[in-house]
Formats: sequence, structure tokens, C-alpha cells
Amino acid sequence: MGLKPVKVGICGLGTVGGGTFNVLKRNESEITRRAGRVIRVEQIGARRPNPNCETNGVQITDDIFAVAKNPEVDIVVELIGGYETALELVLTAIEHGKHVVTANKALIAEHGNEIFEAAQRKNVMVAFEASVAGGIPIIKAIREGLAANSINWLAGIINGTGNFILTEMRDKGRAFGDVLKEAQELGYAEADPTFDVEGIDAAHKLTILASLAYGVPLQFNKAYTEGISEITTEDVNYAEELGYRIKHLGVSRRTEDGIELRVHPTLIPEKRLIANVDGVMNAVLVDADAVGPTLYYGAGAGSEPTASAVIADLVDVVRAMTADRDNRVPHLAFHPSHMSDLPILPMEEIRTAYYLRLNAIDHPGVLAEVTSILSAQQISIDSILQKGTGEELVPIIILTHEVQEKQMNQAIKQIEALEDIQGAVTRIRVEQLDAN
Amino acid sequence: MGLKPVKVGICGLGTVGGGTFNVLKRNESEITRRAGRVIRVEQIGARRPNPNCETNGVQITDDIFAVAKNPEVDIVVELIGGYETALELVLTAIEHGKHVVTANKALIAEHGNEIFEAAQRKNVMVAFEASVAGGIPIIKAIREGLAANSINWLAGIINGTGNFILTEMRDKGRAFGDVLKEAQELGYAEADPTFDVEGIDAAHKLTILASLAYGVPLQFNKAYTEGISEITTEDVNYAEELGYRIKHLGVSRRTEDGIELRVHPTLIPEKRLIANVDGVMNAVLVDADAVGPTLYYGAGAGSEPTASAVIADLVDVVRAMTADRDNRVPHLAFHPSHMSDLPILPMEEIRTAYYLRLNAIDHPGVLAEVTSILSAQQISIDSILQKGTGEELVPIIILTHEVQEKQMNQAIKQIEALEDIQGAVTRIRVEQLDAN
Repeated sequence: MGLKPVKVGICGLGTVGGGTFNVLKRNESEITRRAGRVIRVEQIGARRPNPNCETNGVQITDDIFAVAKNPEVDIVVELIGGYETALELVLTAIEHGKHVVTANKALIAEHGNEIFEAAQRKNVMVAFEASVAGGIPIIKAIREGLAANSINWLAGIINGTGNFILTEMRDKGRAFGDVLKEAQELGYAEADPTFDVEGIDAAHKLTILASLAYGVPLQFNKAYTEGISEITTEDVNYAEELGYRIKHLGVSRRTEDGIELRVHPTLIPEKRLIANVDGVMNAVLVDADAVGPTLYYGAGAGSEPTASAVIADLVDVVRAMTADRDNRVPHLAFHPSHMSDLPILPMEEIRTAYYLRLNAIDHPGVLAEVTSILSAQQISIDSILQKGTGEELVPIIILTHEVQEKQMNQAIKQIEALEDIQGAVTRIRVEQLDAN
Repeated sequence: MGLKPVKVGICGLGTVGGGTFNVLKRNESEITRRAGRVIRVEQIGARRPNPNCETNGVQITDDIFAVAKNPEVDIVVELIGGYETALELVLTAIEHGKHVVTANKALIAEHGNEIFEAAQRKNVMVAFEASVAGGIPIIKAIREGLAANSINWLAGIINGTGNFILTEMRDKGRAFGDVLKEAQELGYAEADPTFDVEGIDAAHKLTILASLAYGVPLQFNKAYTEGISEITTEDVNYAEELGYRIKHLGVSRRTEDGIELRVHPTLIPEKRLIANVDGVMNAVLVDADAVGPTLYYGAGAGSEPTASAVIADLVDVVRAMTADRDNRVPHLAFHPSHMSDLPILPMEEIRTAYYLRLNAIDHPGVLAEVTSILSAQQISIDSILQKGTGEELVPIIILTHEVQEKQMNQAIKQIEALEDIQGAVTRIRVEQLDAN
């Protein structure tokens, strides 16, 4: 290969940084034969060595900013995670004319607009394939593979921890808290699991996907986020009985009025391929006008799967380094001067179907009261499941057709005010995920 | 957008050509916002108009070679299909310095090496995303998305007609011939269905995928091809009983000795996601060393799904047109001077597990005879299903562990020679498709 090596500086040598270093080394020959030149790790910025990495011969510094400023480095790989320092590091690298590859979804979702603007000014690229769904090349698929399409909607299982918990709850009838504890022991979930189980991590990724799909600026602060900690095995079982599975989905749909951007537990028909994505695996389903539905499945996290995406970005950046700005793939799929100003819809404005579970005192007439409330809010019913328990309180499960969330909120408030209804109404959104 | 329009000549205005024209027109604004410039259809080469296309204002000629030579055209889109004329057209376009986009799997699988060499000489690109699995961006995924990986194996449902037939056989217990007739009436299958049901079409696509995955030249003539016309509902049902589904798979695995390249009916565990890919849909499962298993699913054929891939290629070509050769993605993923010479293994050398169905005369000792033949060939048994039918002939179903095909051929010959075995042994290969 005649071209001179490209020199990379890796900042952060933890799980992903170590994996990136190791895969670059192990597959050096294949990667070089593909990229047309050697991708060489010139310097590593890390506070401590990684016992899984033999970094012999590579210069290591504990000053990551030295890497970002190193005149010998062409591309800076940000794998330190977190917000402030990562942002400063990436902006420093850009300021010094380096291209950047990052796996940091929080950083991109919350500071991407600023970062891309800085990159645009300095004529460098910021690549972030590893920030969504780990090793699945979903950003490349949406940004390049579906470039012909007007995208209608996308739905993703984009948090492995949450999917592992829901899979265990369904397969083994275990309770949420019980599985969460195991996930923490297995290292799937953090000590503070909020980011994963409350959907913040998924909302970061969904924010990125929606921008790529529709060409709107990143607007993480407008995403609706609801976690899975309130899901009970009872609901998992009723869903099953109705032919559905409960998954923690990120859903983003483009409507005439705006873009839906929401993460929440969702009933989906068990026949859909994505309903059968289990354990820690991720999948993203995209519905687009020309191609129809396509689905992308794989490992959403982990050392080497994430490294796979980081290195794919490196190869892409290496190829596009000498191209002028207009011939590069735009950061958010659409050229920055041609973004869409379609607003993100408030949650009250979204339309979806619902699963409702109510605890009713077993009196004649209670079902009539409930259904007349729904009917007054123009909510039509798809199916009802009423379980005779022999006890005073009977569960009623209702699947509705699509309606605006605002109306459902009204209906739920009225149902909860009924004398014969005890406690809060459980409400889980339902998506058919069929092509238009 | 400041850059000047890119001018495209479309040759062939049938199903895919018409779809390409229509999607380019309908989504012109979004495509332009992504590509950074207008992609304009300068000329169409077609013998007759397509009633679904309003080509007003676009120059139409019935001489496709005039398009290939038109000095105003930057990129020639070959959508005429077939071999000789398509080859001549593509080579003429290359000779005239045009980039080429094609959806022609037969052309690429059988003449790709020659075409890419010519393109390399003239410093132009030939893009062929639409040639495999229609709208699924599988070529992009393997060639770019998985660039960090050493790929272990891939397995694909890459012929929609065959998958439709097998899905109907399983879901409705219908016979092969009956479903084939319906598929022909629905337009899924050609009047001569050989290409689809005998696996030739799938072998074309598999040949392309294997070259992209392992960096070997295209060698369609070495692919093993077995169709689905001998599959009976009986086997579909036994497979089901054993926890498997029968799919017509293209399988390519890299071993130390060479590359397996084979299309045949295959039992796969029903729990695998790919086992649940039904109807005319396609999916490709790839197992790679860093990322693990990833799967790509979508429509494998049809007017607009195929157009989606053709146009994605156009956008890619537009972006890379001004790049020098070494900065473009190599045609077969690896730089042409660095291809692998790993041979394609003859079918006798491949290793897989097997489903065997024998018709035995209900004598004591027949099972002992069969199992001792298997044992002598070092074939170990995973499970046996023997059905008491009350008739003189009883079916025996055997699932084996992995063994070399050569040994299985020996064993089958010997089993068929047994006095108590009637007729031929039915043999279907079994793949677990689990990650290594």
C-alpha cells in the first residue's frame, strides 16, 4: 500500500478503548487491505494501563489534552465518556485541526450541534457510529444506505440492559428488581442503573437517530422518557395472552405537524421480528417510503462490538480526509445549510394505541362506565380481557386503537375518579410497527 | 447547494428502472439535501416507455449504447438485466469514462472480476448495492460497516421467491408445486422458476457477499447450488417437531483450508431471528470476530426497494467521484492488489450437520444397522425420531452432529444399500448459526 500511515490518538483505555486498541492490532492486516493504508496508534491518553492491552511501543500519556494537541496525530478517538471533559477534549482536538471519532452518545445527543458546528468551521469530521447500538452499523445505514428515502418512522431496542431485564421477566416470570440485581452482578447494568432503566441512555441514542433520519438538529431536551421500572410480570403476562411482547422502545415518527421522539415500554405484536430480539441484543427497525421496513440487529454494547464501530469510523474518516467538505457525508445526514425546522412534538400531541389495566370492584355496570368514558374521548376499543379472579377486585385489560395522548390522559383521569376503580390505571403504549 | 448537478443516464425502464426514476423524482428534495447537489436524469435508454413513469422533459432513446457514450452523462445506471448486452453496455460506459451503477447480480457474479479490472484501469467506480438483497444496505454494511472485522461466516435468505414458498409450505401445509404456481400468478416467480427455486439467483448473490467478506475474487462457477423443489411438507413438519425451520440459505464460511460457498435448503433452530424471516423478505446474518453476529433484514426485491439501493449507490458515487482511487471503497472491499487467494472448497470438503430421513421396513435391528454405519464414518448422532405409523414402512429421522460432507456421502450410500431401507435417503443440511 503506497499511502502513508494515518496516525491515531486514543483517549481513554477502558473497555472500549482497550477493545479498539486490540482489534486494530489483531486485524491490522485485514483493516490495512481494506483501508488502503496502515492505521497506526500514535499515542494513547489514559490515566492507567489496561491489563487486557499490550501497548508495548506505543507512547502513553496521562494528559489526554496532549493527545488532542499532538501535531503527529491525525485523528483523535474520544473514549473517555462523560460530558464536560469529553466536550472540552473534542473541541480542543477540533480546534487543533484533528478529525474526531467518538462512542459518546450523551456527548453527541446533548452537545452535538455545537460540536458539528465547530467541526464544520475547522473543516474536520466527527464520526460517531459507535454512539448508537454499538457494533450495528445503523448510522451508516440511515445516513448512507437509505439516502434515497423519505423516512417515515423508526423504532429501536437500543438499551441492552433494559432488554435483558424485560427478556428475563418474560422468559422466567421474574420480577424487575430481582433481574436488575442480577444484571448489575453480571456487569450489564451500572451501580446507578437510572441511565439504562429510566430510558435516558435510549433517549440519547434515539435523539441521534431521529436527527439522522429527518435532518432536524439534535434536541435531546425535548425527548419524552419513561423507564421500565414500573413494569410488572402481571402486565408481561397479559401482553403475552393478547399476542404482544413488552419492549423498551425508542420511537420516532415524522408526521405533518412534527416529529415524535419518545422512549417508553411498548407492547408490540409478538410476530414482529423485533419482538424476538432478546437478552442484551439491540435492533433498530426503520420504515422508509421506497425501501419499506428494514431491520438492523446486533450487539449494542461491549468492548469489541463497540470497537468495531469505532474502527469502521476510522476507516471512513481516513478515506474522506482528503475530500473537500461538500463531498463528505454530512454529520447529521443532511447538509447543515439544509436542515429541517420540523418541531419535536410534545408528548400530549403524539398518537399511539394503548394497553390499559384497571382494578375494578366487581360490580355490574363498571365496564359500561369505563367504556363510555373512552367513547366520549373518541377512543375506540380493540379488545377487552376481563379476568374472573373470584376476588372483590378484578383486573380489566383494554387494548385501544390509536388516539392522541392528550385524550387518553383525559380518559385515564376520569376512569381513575370512578368509585368502582381502585388505584391508578396502568397505561402502556402499543405500536403495531407495520409498514404504512 | 453550490455544486453543479450530476447527470445520470438510466438504461432500462422496467420495474427497477421505473422505480429508480420515480423515487429520484419524488424524493428529489431530500436526496439533494443529503447529497449536496442535484442528481439529474439526463437521458433514458429504453425500448419502450413505462406507463408508471412520467418522463416528460427527459430525453429518451432506444439506443442504450448512445447513453453509455453520451458525453453529457456522468454515471450510467444499468438496469436492463441479463448477460451479454449488459456486459457490453457496462464495458462501453467504463471505456467512455463513466461511473456505473447496476442492480445486475448475474452480471457481477459472473463477470465482475473483468468489469472491476476495466473500471480500475479507467479510474471509474462500479457500484452494485442493488445486486444483493434489494433494498437492504448489506454490501455497505459488510464492505464499510464491518471493516474492522475478520468475518467468520455469513448466511442469508437472499431469494424472496424461495422464502415465500417455504413459508407457505410451513404455515399452511401446502405442497411445493401448489405454492410455486401461486407465486407465479402473484408475479413473485418467473414463468421459468429455475433461477429462483434451484438457487442460482441466490448463488449469484452469495458469490458477491463472500468476495466482499473475505476478499477473494468472484468465483460463481465454484458455488454449490441445491434447490428447494425436493422439499416435502413431511420434512417441513419433522423439522418443526425437532425445533427447526427449513430455509433456503446461502452459506459462506471461512475455514483454514478455504471458503465454503453453498446454497441449499437448511434446517435452522426456530429460535434464531433469521428463522423467523418469512414471506418474500430477505435477511443476511454475518458473524464477525469483533462485532459478533449482526443481521440485516428487508425487502429483497421489488421496484422501489431495489431503486432505494440504486440511488444510495448514486449518492455514494457522487461523493467519491472527485476522490482519487485509493480513497474510494474498493469494489470487493479489499484493495485489488491485496486480494486473498484462499480457495473455494469443493462441496465434499465442507463441514456441517445433517437431517436424514429414511424409510425403513419395520424390522428389529434396522436402526442398529443404520447407526453402526454412521458410527463407522465417525458421524455422531444428535437425536433420533422414529415414528410408529402402523404401516410396514416407518420413517426414521436422524439429526447428526457436524461432519465432513464426504463422510456423509459415504454413509448415505451404505445406508441406501441396506435391505431394510427403501428408496433414497433424504438429506438436508443443518446449521446452528450460533456465534463462535
